[in-house]
Amino acid sequence: MQDFLQKAKQSSRIVATLSTEIKNSVLLQMANALQENTSYIIEENSKDMKNAKENNLSSAMQDRLLLNEKRVFDMANAIRQIASQTEPVGRILDGWVTKDDLNIQKVSIPIGVIGIIYESRPNVTSDTAALCFKSGNVCVLKGGKEAENSNQAIAKILQNILEKNNLPKQAISLLPDSSREGVAKLIKEDKFVDLIVPRGGEALIRFISENSSIPVIKHDKGVCHIFIDKDANANKVISIVINAKCQRPSACNSIETILVHDDIAPYILTGLQEELKLQGTQLKGCAKTLEYIKVDFAQENDFYTEYLENILNIKVVSNVNEAIEHIQKYGSGHSESILSENYTTINKFLNEVDAACVYANASTRFTDGGEFGLGAEVGISTNKLHSRGPMGINDLTTFKYKIYGQGQTRK
Amino acid sequence: MQDFLQKAKQSSRIVATLSTEIKNSVLLQMANALQENTSYIIEENSKDMKNAKENNLSSAMQDRLLLNEKRVFDMANAIRQIASQTEPVGRILDGWVTKDDLNIQKVSIPIGVIGIIYESRPNVTSDTAALCFKSGNVCVLKGGKEAENSNQAIAKILQNILEKNNLPKQAISLLPDSSREGVAKLIKEDKFVDLIVPRGGEALIRFISENSSIPVIKHDKGVCHIFIDKDANANKVISIVINAKCQRPSACNSIETILVHDDIAPYILTGLQEELKLQGTQLKGCAKTLEYIKVDFAQENDFYTEYLENILNIKVVSNVNEAIEHIQKYGSGHSESILSENYTTINKFLNEVDAACVYANASTRFTDGGEFGLGAEVGISTNKLHSRGPMGINDLTTFKYKIYGQGQTRK
Repeated sequence: MQDFLQKAKQSSRIVATLSTEIKNSVLLQMANALQENTSYIIEENSKDMKNAKENNLSSAMQDRLLLNEKRVFDMANAIRQIASQTEPVGRILDGWVTKDDLNIQKVSIPIGVIGIIYESRPNVTSDTAALCFKSGNVCVLKGGKEAENSNQAIAKILQNILEKNNLPKQAISLLPDSSREGVAKLIKEDKFVDLIVPRGGEALIRFISENSSIPVIKHDKGVCHIFIDKDANANKVISIVINAKCQRPSACNSIETILVHDDIAPYILTGLQEELKLQGTQLKGCAKTLEYIKVDFAQENDFYTEYLENILNIKVVSNVNEAIEHIQKYGSGHSESILSENYTTINKFLNEVDAACVYANASTRFTDGGEFGLGAEVGISTNKLHSRGPMGINDLTTFKYKIYGQGQTRK
Repeated sequence: MQDFLQKAKQSSRIVATLSTEIKNSVLLQMANALQENTSYIIEENSKDMKNAKENNLSSAMQDRLLLNEKRVFDMANAIRQIASQTEPVGRILDGWVTKDDLNIQKVSIPIGVIGIIYESRPNVTSDTAALCFKSGNVCVLKGGKEAENSNQAIAKILQNILEKNNLPKQAISLLPDSSREGVAKLIKEDKFVDLIVPRGGEALIRFISENSSIPVIKHDKGVCHIFIDKDANANKVISIVINAKCQRPSACNSIETILVHDDIAPYILTGLQEELKLQGTQLKGCAKTLEYIKVDFAQENDFYTEYLENILNIKVVSNVNEAIEHIQKYGSGHSESILSENYTTINKFLNEVDAACVYANASTRFTDGGEFGLGAEVGISTNKLHSRGPMGINDLTTFKYKIYGQGQTRK
């Protein structure tokens, strides 16, 4: 493991200083190579699919695992899109001249070696590898066991292109020991690895946060809310709530709970219930909600749950403060929205709610690299430090200070 | 412990939204209160000093621990300076309009609850408390056992001012269990604490990095270098090397090693040796160095050592690449400097050396919040993520996205 990681670390110095021109040329070659090897990739993927069927993976899981011609084409195009993004390395983030006439520049640089732990979808392998390469980083990828053949095939094709360009193939690596023990070892190697990004189940993320001696940027759950204020515009309420809950309930930026101001509850809950019924949404309500509409009773624990399904909690609150209190207690700091036309209430909500993304009069479903206009994303960070919310290519950089002097010494 | 931290967390929501006016008024009251209670502080400090003598603490340690009228006055003035700094919360760091006409603002916000673990100097207690308060954060302070009475006295005075202003005194807290076990517990409380900043010995920092489930920003050692290129201006060399080594050898931004280009070594080593002799510097050299001047032989391990004393390693290298290789292998990513008049060599060095601060033609001693013009500093981060190098008040903030819509749903 240490040998392998040492090579990754050494490669990182080469990748960090590649020119934009070379990086983009290599990425475009990678995209073409994936397309040219479509049948090989599908062949290897079919081994994973066979195992998945034998192991009775859910049909949803099987669908995520499956590669076909269209999906390989999409993977190649994602790499082309990443190549077209603005160079993330070398941006001058800040700069000034000190009292001693030192010229200080704060410049973006690659992070170094990034370990990424993920599951299922094999396109994550090529997406992440391309994002890391574009930002001058080396990636150590640990995909799911169920996708092992697909991931190996994809990595091999990308590595071939690296070697054709006289670049170290370790710049895009799969973790050699992909067992749980392998991960446990990886997250202790702080001499060689600069960042760990876990995407996956709560238990995995918990294990990594507690045991890693390397900084971790979590992609954890989203328990998101919409607060419908008494001054909400009723026309916007239904479309936004339906979009935020029903468009893709399995997404982390979908909502779990709506908080409804007591003054507006009698006027909107019946209508909302009817519309959500058409969407097949299962509703659970607090005691107060049950006074207005007939739904299941929401238990305390329901408010903590990330459903990832078409289920919605309703809680009636008496003011914006109670809504904020509820969000701070039950929310996961992901995406929170207020529907209101009241300037002061909106201002209070946006200022006081502590979450990666706080919205006024919009669906929480916009928390996404593509929707934000950041391009392809590594994921959505639920960390509070370094990167928060949609994590684009610029979030895969850190910085250093370059200081230009003319012989200065400190007084 | 959990009760205590829960209160700290609750206070953090209050402190986070205080206006600049209130924060500054409270800070100025704190500064005055410290001055007014000078004799009480000195009285409590004398208990620590008595223990220090009984425990035979080194005279350097005793000097760091000592408080007198002048030093309390300086503490008060440091708080006044912090109050005068530009508001770090609410800065708009970035902003744009998306394809769906969402108006996105990336806004700086406080981090939340920050645990700070440090040693000896009691002024760190008031400095850090003021920096955290100014940036809207709650601090949980764990000072050294040797300064316990002094720290308690200082915290009590600051907390009194909080209470006088109807603010929760938990906004500035001392960790109730200040034992090693207390620290071990603290760094697992990720529900209540958002960041741990350890300042101290290597063993402490290692322990915290390996065991914390909370993000850590380390203030670790500085193994810093100056590379004297063949194109260095000899007039600048001696003054910069002497400044970087001898002005304050115990500082982390002092150098441990000079790397001398082989072409210039015969012309400058003798002169450097003479000048450094006048400063009482003990020199150790590589085999090649010993061909030019008579000094002790530098062992492999010497190059890894942060001396914190007036000792300097010399290594002769054949080019800038060898210098960079050496720095990447032995350096701690703190501060590195090149002395050269060659545009291309400087560019290569500044681009390829991975450290918080990379200098051209200046002393590494400038790596400091005050020298950078950042105002009072929390310390010098040797982390690669979130904060790197001198950590000023803005580094005590993170960000959230505020998104202003007009009813948008995702397509």
